[in-house]
Amino acid sequence: MIIVMKPNASETAITQVVKLIQDNGLETHLSQGKEVTIIGVVGDKNKLVNKNIELMSSVDKIIPVTESYKLTNKKFHPEPSRIKVGNHEIGPDTLTVMAGPCAVETEEQLLTIAREVKKAGAQFVRGGAYKPRTSPYSFQGLEEEGLRYMQEAKKETGLNTICEVISAQAIDAAVKYVDMIQIGARNMQNFQLLREAGQSGLPVLLKRGLAATIDEWLNAAEYIIAEGNPNVVLCERGIRTFETATRNTLDISAVPVIKSKSHLPIIVDPSHATGVWDYVSPLAKAAVACGADGLMIEVHNDPEHALSDGPQSLNFKHFDELMAEMKAYIQLAERKL
Amino acid sequence: MIIVMKPNASETAITQVVKLIQDNGLETHLSQGKEVTIIGVVGDKNKLVNKNIELMSSVDKIIPVTESYKLTNKKFHPEPSRIKVGNHEIGPDTLTVMAGPCAVETEEQLLTIAREVKKAGAQFVRGGAYKPRTSPYSFQGLEEEGLRYMQEAKKETGLNTICEVISAQAIDAAVKYVDMIQIGARNMQNFQLLREAGQSGLPVLLKRGLAATIDEWLNAAEYIIAEGNPNVVLCERGIRTFETATRNTLDISAVPVIKSKSHLPIIVDPSHATGVWDYVSPLAKAAVACGADGLMIEVHNDPEHALSDGPQSLNFKHFDELMAEMKAYIQLAERKL
Amino acid sequence: MIIVMKPNASETAITQVVKLIQDNGLETHLSQGKEVTIIGVVGDKNKLVNKNIELMSSVDKIIPVTESYKLTNKKFHPEPSRIKVGNHEIGPDTLTVMAGPCAVETEEQLLTIAREVKKAGAQFVRGGAYKPRTSPYSFQGLEEEGLRYMQEAKKETGLNTICEVISAQAIDAAVKYVDMIQIGARNMQNFQLLREAGQSGLPVLLKRGLAATIDEWLNAAEYIIAEGNPNVVLCERGIRTFETATRNTLDISAVPVIKSKSHLPIIVDPSHATGVWDYVSPLAKAAVACGADGLMIEVHNDPEHALSDGPQSLNFKHFDELMAEMKAYIQLAERKL
Amino acid sequence: MIIVMKPNASETAITQVVKLIQDNGLETHLSQGKEVTIIGVVGDKNKLVNKNIELMSSVDKIIPVTESYKLTNKKFHPEPSRIKVGNHEIGPDTLTVMAGPCAVETEEQLLTIAREVKKAGAQFVRGGAYKPRTSPYSFQGLEEEGLRYMQEAKKETGLNTICEVISAQAIDAAVKYVDMIQIGARNMQNFQLLREAGQSGLPVLLKRGLAATIDEWLNAAEYIIAEGNPNVVLCERGIRTFETATRNTLDISAVPVIKSKSHLPIIVDPSHATGVWDYVSPLAKAAVACGADGLMIEVHNDPEHALSDGPQSLNFKHFDELMAEMKAYIQLAERKL
Repeated sequence: MIIVMKPNASETAITQVVKLIQDNGLETHLSQGKEVTIIGVVGDKNKLVNKNIELMSSVDKIIPVTESYKLTNKKFHPEPSRIKVGNHEIGPDTLTVMAGPCAVETEEQLLTIAREVKKAGAQFVRGGAYKPRTSPYSFQGLEEEGLRYMQEAKKETGLNTICEVISAQAIDAAVKYVDMIQIGARNMQNFQLLREAGQSGLPVLLKRGLAATIDEWLNAAEYIIAEGNPNVVLCERGIRTFETATRNTLDISAVPVIKSKSHLPIIVDPSHATGVWDYVSPLAKAAVACGADGLMIEVHNDPEHALSDGPQSLNFKHFDELMAEMKAYIQLAERKL
Repeated sequence: MIIVMKPNASETAITQVVKLIQDNGLETHLSQGKEVTIIGVVGDKNKLVNKNIELMSSVDKIIPVTESYKLTNKKFHPEPSRIKVGNHEIGPDTLTVMAGPCAVETEEQLLTIAREVKKAGAQFVRGGAYKPRTSPYSFQGLEEEGLRYMQEAKKETGLNTICEVISAQAIDAAVKYVDMIQIGARNMQNFQLLREAGQSGLPVLLKRGLAATIDEWLNAAEYIIAEGNPNVVLCERGIRTFETATRNTLDISAVPVIKSKSHLPIIVDPSHATGVWDYVSPLAKAAVACGADGLMIEVHNDPEHALSDGPQSLNFKHFDELMAEMKAYIQLAERKL
Repeated sequence: MIIVMKPNASETAITQVVKLIQDNGLETHLSQGKEVTIIGVVGDKNKLVNKNIELMSSVDKIIPVTESYKLTNKKFHPEPSRIKVGNHEIGPDTLTVMAGPCAVETEEQLLTIAREVKKAGAQFVRGGAYKPRTSPYSFQGLEEEGLRYMQEAKKETGLNTICEVISAQAIDAAVKYVDMIQIGARNMQNFQLLREAGQSGLPVLLKRGLAATIDEWLNAAEYIIAEGNPNVVLCERGIRTFETATRNTLDISAVPVIKSKSHLPIIVDPSHATGVWDYVSPLAKAAVACGADGLMIEVHNDPEHALSDGPQSLNFKHFDELMAEMKAYIQLAERKL
Repeated sequence: MIIVMKPNASETAITQVVKLIQDNGLETHLSQGKEVTIIGVVGDKNKLVNKNIELMSSVDKIIPVTESYKLTNKKFHPEPSRIKVGNHEIGPDTLTVMAGPCAVETEEQLLTIAREVKKAGAQFVRGGAYKPRTSPYSFQGLEEEGLRYMQEAKKETGLNTICEVISAQAIDAAVKYVDMIQIGARNMQNFQLLREAGQSGLPVLLKRGLAATIDEWLNAAEYIIAEGNPNVVLCERGIRTFETATRNTLDISAVPVIKSKSHLPIIVDPSHATGVWDYVSPLAKAAVACGADGLMIEVHNDPEHALSDGPQSLNFKHFDELMAEMKAYIQLAERKL
């Protein structure tokens, strides 16, 4: 931590700040520049958490030099994590594909889609049973009934299953039926839910919030891991910007940035990022080419009649073509499906 | 709802869309332009919710013409709402001031602050007992103990009390101790929590999400009101932009925009919007001048030692000065404290 | 300037960085923390401009501690500037109102509007003769002819005149006809134009770029002043965000932020910020209440038939009402029209 | 164009709007819904440009249905354009690589870099002779001297040359020395410069503005083409968002979006988008994988001592590796270098 003093800070003021820090058991290093004096602070900065040094009238600003996340930090865990889910491992050797409808609608619908995405090469079927919707008047999901269909789909196809959870009750139900739970973008800083997801013991897919910085995202993952659950996978799904040609702006750079800051796997969701099925295929290839560990893709048996997010879903033909075209990219990335 | 066809859409394709709409019990109006054909749809568009007309290959885009929120919409409720909380009414005749510490730290601290803000003219004491914090290693709040201190503060000063809730358990506790609950920015689209807040029967202060549009915000309010609880007050607290000179960017225009779209009261929180106590006073005056129904302001007995958000808190002297200076602005706005 | 080394930086690597800095005539101060070592650099950092210390493999990041703008910086010029334009002074004692049409359309139109805004209390008539328009097919302005009408308006009403310039030729023409020139948002980092504006000797109103940080804005002002022209006034006119309810998002906090960082006057343009005439009046009052030195407001004799930006223009009746209502706010701000 | 009336619009008001439109030689189609009436307008909407229908008190909003850009629009030019520059064609069959230093520093530096990027497979050498810099105190470029070095580099290596222009004078000089000119992000809406670039007859690389929507970008291209110069190539180089881990946010989705809206080629600049050389290689591959027509990459002989933007430049070894790794991706995209 570095403290930058104001240009006119007196000797007395500087001494006062130094003393405060030292009285709290930390060391200081003074740099007196021509314009400003800066004070380097050495030691556990949590000891200063309630000191609010920024408010002292002679202090200009505080600059942190280390990240607040530890368990997700690559500095303390240089090897990439491998997250086991059922019979599959998400990590640097595989390219994980999670595919399925935005919302589970009927058992038949889910089974039909699960069979198809299995055939095309996906290792997970995804499907929402609890849907966070902007308007209270939109379809909100089949809840536990939908989770039971997910279990059926697993039984029949052998696919791993993933489902979004939006409450403690949903997590309690999910534990009984699915292999992995998802925290959605709107709940990325629902810290209560993050803790409950950590306590559930299930692997967690943590989507990035619509306006979350990468630092906040890693701190959110830290909440889950701090509960004793290290099985966290990140998912970039677009951030909110001024551009309206796509629903969100896919921050593809998040892939190499996360790779440089964390050991956690990261997958990309081009369906929610763009909201337009036509852009899903080029962006899926881009994600694999730049190092993503996997993809989450919306697939629907009948996108024209989907109860949620139809316009961004691929139909079976398009998904088959995408998976066929991606083979070469997966091979170039030295991964396997 | 308006459907814009692609430039090359055939007669057959247009007929097909028209038929689909009419088969679902709605009327259509056709406009054949030189470049494109557009189809106006008349009737309850919820009948088309699972039709995904956007996916039909001849359709270019769908443009909604009416808002999805109804209960919060000024069109169907032209008079401004008046929300009763304890002995106070939030609405067009009053200027409501909610003041207090970011986090409740001790009983003594809260009582000291409550006495002071009461003396200066505030009608509410605010204080966080459940703190949503970016890092799991930051101070998380006193929880129910903190709520009890709020109740004490009310007993002694007669101030109304407001406290943020972050879970169903927190709401259950809040019902016993405080007058009004707050849904924070990070939970603005935690739809489960919105419904539970609606069911609680307590008046709700709904903060705007960091990247929430005004439409999404009004839809979030709709979730609460749809549970039978019309007592919702909105709070603008800054949105996330590229600018880093302030913690967030206060969207002051949200005040007149909300006034034109909704009947709900709106207050402004300049403390969280900027993160700098020095900017709170000018922005508080600006909020009153442009029609806000109130202010939420962080006040601390000892900002240099606050456990949370010290740099943005006013001390007693600054708060007294602000309240004194605001009097003339409140009078100009034809409101009373 | 502070250099943060990587956690695993060796003694040799640290010594190498220190030596590089000292070899360039600067001093270093070393802080060896538990996790990282930081190196404070004392002296003129321009000596290191081509050293790219960030690229050295042992270096994590560089943190600047002083601003790159000097002539616009309050630290070196603590008193607020007073900019003389014609018979008027823009600064801390006055509230400057610049009003007029987005585009000059005819001489009669401009004279009609000038007479009215003069009567209502404005000290400047504004009007665009060179219009930067998104589409090449939109109306582009009357150019020099429009400037001549501005001169006429001044002769008849005694108002000061201001006009946007978009090229060196436009500046050459403006020098002959108007009192002040404006650099628009889209040209805020057209550095060639900034220099030419500086050389013109005319006072300059510098609008903030749509995505410009406050730091970049002050650096742009620095370009003008560095040419020997200290007569610069800033104008906040909204920044680009995800919100679509207003054309841009008025960053009202920029007013107190600029006041804390610079001695230059700052005015606010609520017309371009929102794009909706209905929101202009509340935001104009907010700007005055939070310390702005003035306002730029679009006024049109016949907004329904304006050639540019009609929907955001006030008609005469609305402008009269606004000026009448603002009187009390101007008095509270201890300014005079 | 569609006009949405307010819910309470009277028959008289609707008739008045319809009459206004018809009096201007356009046709109307009326849709009377339960809540609102909408009026479809058929014909050349430029006839209504100064009517400001939005201001009529009974009108809620105007929704455009067609794009304002025509010459850049894929609807009227379905085949992808092929832009000839010297001996090279930028378009759907090639993968164009423009590489070189951010700023031309010396003749020797430029020649050294040109030889290396030629050897590695690039078809263009890029280098800035006129540098737009945030601070007036940063290095501003060698100007015409730099252009002469570019000409030398072409003579010796046979590479095509591209250089940014920031003024009419720079364009006049560029015409004599280089093959293609670049309009930078900060000048994307410097409409005067766009017109001058169009008149120059040289092929133009048009970078996207930091906060420009894709629609505004295509309109900016329209300015160039409207001057009779169809040789425009677009370049995505990152947009400004709240995320600070990268200098800008690369909007990779712009590639498929542009492909769906325009016939113009689009290349990607991962160096300026991220500001970090380490992220350039993964993003370059991503760009090729999602359909980009080329790449602009900063390469420097000695990034640690570059006069501008060193931290984002690749050194020769890294550039060689990138070009080697990209071969397979270029082949998959069915393009050739």
